[in-house]
Amino acid sequence: MEAGESVVRYQAEGGQALLTIDRPRARNALSPEVLHGLLAALDRAEADPDVRVVVLTGAGEKVFCAGGDLGQMSGEGGFLATHEGRRAYGRLLLRLQDIRKPTVARVNGHALAGGLGLVLGCDLAVAAEHAELGTPEIDVGLFPMMMMALLQRHVGRKRALEMVMTGERLSAREALALGLLNRVVPAAELDTTVAGLVGKLAGKSQAVLALGRRAFFTAEDLPLPAAIEYLSSQLSLNVLAEDAAEGVTAFIEKRPPKWNDR
Amino acid sequence: MEAGESVVRYQAEGGQALLTIDRPRARNALSPEVLHGLLAALDRAEADPDVRVVVLTGAGEKVFCAGGDLGQMSGEGGFLATHEGRRAYGRLLLRLQDIRKPTVARVNGHALAGGLGLVLGCDLAVAAEHAELGTPEIDVGLFPMMMMALLQRHVGRKRALEMVMTGERLSAREALALGLLNRVVPAAELDTTVAGLVGKLAGKSQAVLALGRRAFFTAEDLPLPAAIEYLSSQLSLNVLAEDAAEGVTAFIEKRPPKWNDR
Amino acid sequence: MEAGESVVRYQAEGGQALLTIDRPRARNALSPEVLHGLLAALDRAEADPDVRVVVLTGAGEKVFCAGGDLGQMSGEGGFLATHEGRRAYGRLLLRLQDIRKPTVARVNGHALAGGLGLVLGCDLAVAAEHAELGTPEIDVGLFPMMMMALLQRHVGRKRALEMVMTGERLSAREALALGLLNRVVPAAELDTTVAGLVGKLAGKSQAVLALGRRAFFTAEDLPLPAAIEYLSSQLSLNVLAEDAAEGVTAFIEKRPPKWNDR
Repeated sequence: MEAGESVVRYQAEGGQALLTIDRPRARNALSPEVLHGLLAALDRAEADPDVRVVVLTGAGEKVFCAGGDLGQMSGEGGFLATHEGRRAYGRLLLRLQDIRKPTVARVNGHALAGGLGLVLGCDLAVAAEHAELGTPEIDVGLFPMMMMALLQRHVGRKRALEMVMTGERLSAREALALGLLNRVVPAAELDTTVAGLVGKLAGKSQAVLALGRRAFFTAEDLPLPAAIEYLSSQLSLNVLAEDAAEGVTAFIEKRPPKWNDR
Repeated sequence: MEAGESVVRYQAEGGQALLTIDRPRARNALSPEVLHGLLAALDRAEADPDVRVVVLTGAGEKVFCAGGDLGQMSGEGGFLATHEGRRAYGRLLLRLQDIRKPTVARVNGHALAGGLGLVLGCDLAVAAEHAELGTPEIDVGLFPMMMMALLQRHVGRKRALEMVMTGERLSAREALALGLLNRVVPAAELDTTVAGLVGKLAGKSQAVLALGRRAFFTAEDLPLPAAIEYLSSQLSLNVLAEDAAEGVTAFIEKRPPKWNDR
Repeated sequence: MEAGESVVRYQAEGGQALLTIDRPRARNALSPEVLHGLLAALDRAEADPDVRVVVLTGAGEKVFCAGGDLGQMSGEGGFLATHEGRRAYGRLLLRLQDIRKPTVARVNGHALAGGLGLVLGCDLAVAAEHAELGTPEIDVGLFPMMMMALLQRHVGRKRALEMVMTGERLSAREALALGLLNRVVPAAELDTTVAGLVGKLAGKSQAVLALGRRAFFTAEDLPLPAAIEYLSSQLSLNVLAEDAAEGVTAFIEKRPPKWNDR
């Protein structure tokens, strides 16, 4: 039996927490242990004041994450117990959003089904050009239920329906063109590109990024007049932050800001 | 006077129901008879257990559907009667979504105004490359009201507003780039391409496609946390389906699945 | 001290009201005077029956609008007074939508932060190719709060999050590809292109455009079944308009319509 710690590696260094799904022989599939390992790793990254950016990746070069573990699909225990088990994936998607730090998917290889959902659940995503992305669930009689809600927030109807109904994979470049990814690079440049993006995010005020991300996700579900009213209040909160005073002063004095991150 | 049956042809064969708007001399415009003919044909296709995919097209090679029939715009009867007549188009758009089978638009020619709305209301769409798509209503003092709700679920604001406010047409390739279509091919390849897509959809579990499509459309209107909660329940329903057990077993046994479609 | 009239120029001519943010030395930044000047100018344009299209631009060739005026960020008066001052920007975004005339952004140069929000708040936008667009607020410890709600109605999540979290600018052509703009042209062709688009909009029935724009923005915030029900009513209102009768009659008689604009 796998323990949560062994299937999700956690490495914090240089302001970054790197979370690695480490089941390469199982195509980094989402077993219950992986789900709980990722949830625990996100808690740990959030609690560590030295972590400024969370990066999510898969072990090996072939697969980022192949989705749910079909071998464990039926699960143990009664129906409601297995339902709770499945809900853990939904909790993970919401947790990626709720965490107070920016998240980046390092898409080292194929991201399929629930694995693609993790990519969509991260704020930003960089993929190696050999990675394929898709939702092939329909071919085993399943539908990519939970991640559809994120897919709908990335692409229009015709594209989303084609993906979920045909199950066909996209190349990384096709996924980039659709807006599912932010960057696609040769595998040899993946780490440099991720590091560049992480460095940029790490250089921002963490307090302001946290306030801003939460505002973004909250506003997304509001009608426009309510969104603007809510966001005007968030701006007034933002202006009271120490880092806003520092940022504006530094700008006027033409010097780099020194964030307090609060 | 036209009867509903004569203006909408219904051909069921090889797992596909082909619905053809058959008023080529009237540019396949949406008369009340066409609307009721389409609604009846969708009922028939849904009730026929041999039909696995619904394809919607127009007669001839020039026009898929030119929209509402301006000659019949004022209608007969009082104001509320004509209002009900117009609402039939909205019911058709919702019916295309509510039907328990996948829908494909075979866009044989121009799809304008309410005709474009039918394309957007189908799950997937394949167009001949000579087809033009647009919402020219503004030039006759009308606005493409009902189909706007579908347009907004396909493209962003600037693109949608340009279409409805200027009334200018897009080429099929431009519409593809915007995400209004899934494929654009030379007219000579239209049938082969549609058949390929229909074949793919027909090869999936119909029960799972029906469950999944409904989940997709329902989730679209929910805030993210509610969408994920709802979809986690849909996944647990999905897992209980016979075809999910068969699909997963077939995958593990490395053989093609044999769907029961339930 | 600047007066509202001097920082926002108002020129009505040939059916167009041209609103120019005229603080080129301050990069056309959004001071309280500019916000109130724009709100007043929109009222004036709406009340003038000769104005058929509102065009918003910035003075000079370099900057359309650089966003909020950081020098005036802290404002005067107590916290709630400055909060109300900031809310004026949100009221402006909603006013651009609520006004009964079509709006076009003439993006003569960089559109940053709240300046980009004005571009997104206009119905259509034409940019000079040297213009850069972006939300650099994060680099001064702020987040582009209110305009995010409009950004989310133009692009998918990954693209929007990259813009607001990294603060990096897009070229006009990149912004066009994302759907933030409708046209990008060399600076020398900006006026001709804007005039072409304004001419097209001015040639439509103003009453129908007003009804249609309002329907578009209202429907955007509704679930699909409610949107279609609402829009079917808007169509029946539309059909009762004098200009709908004229438009349809002119179409049948194969002559240009003569709008009454009501």
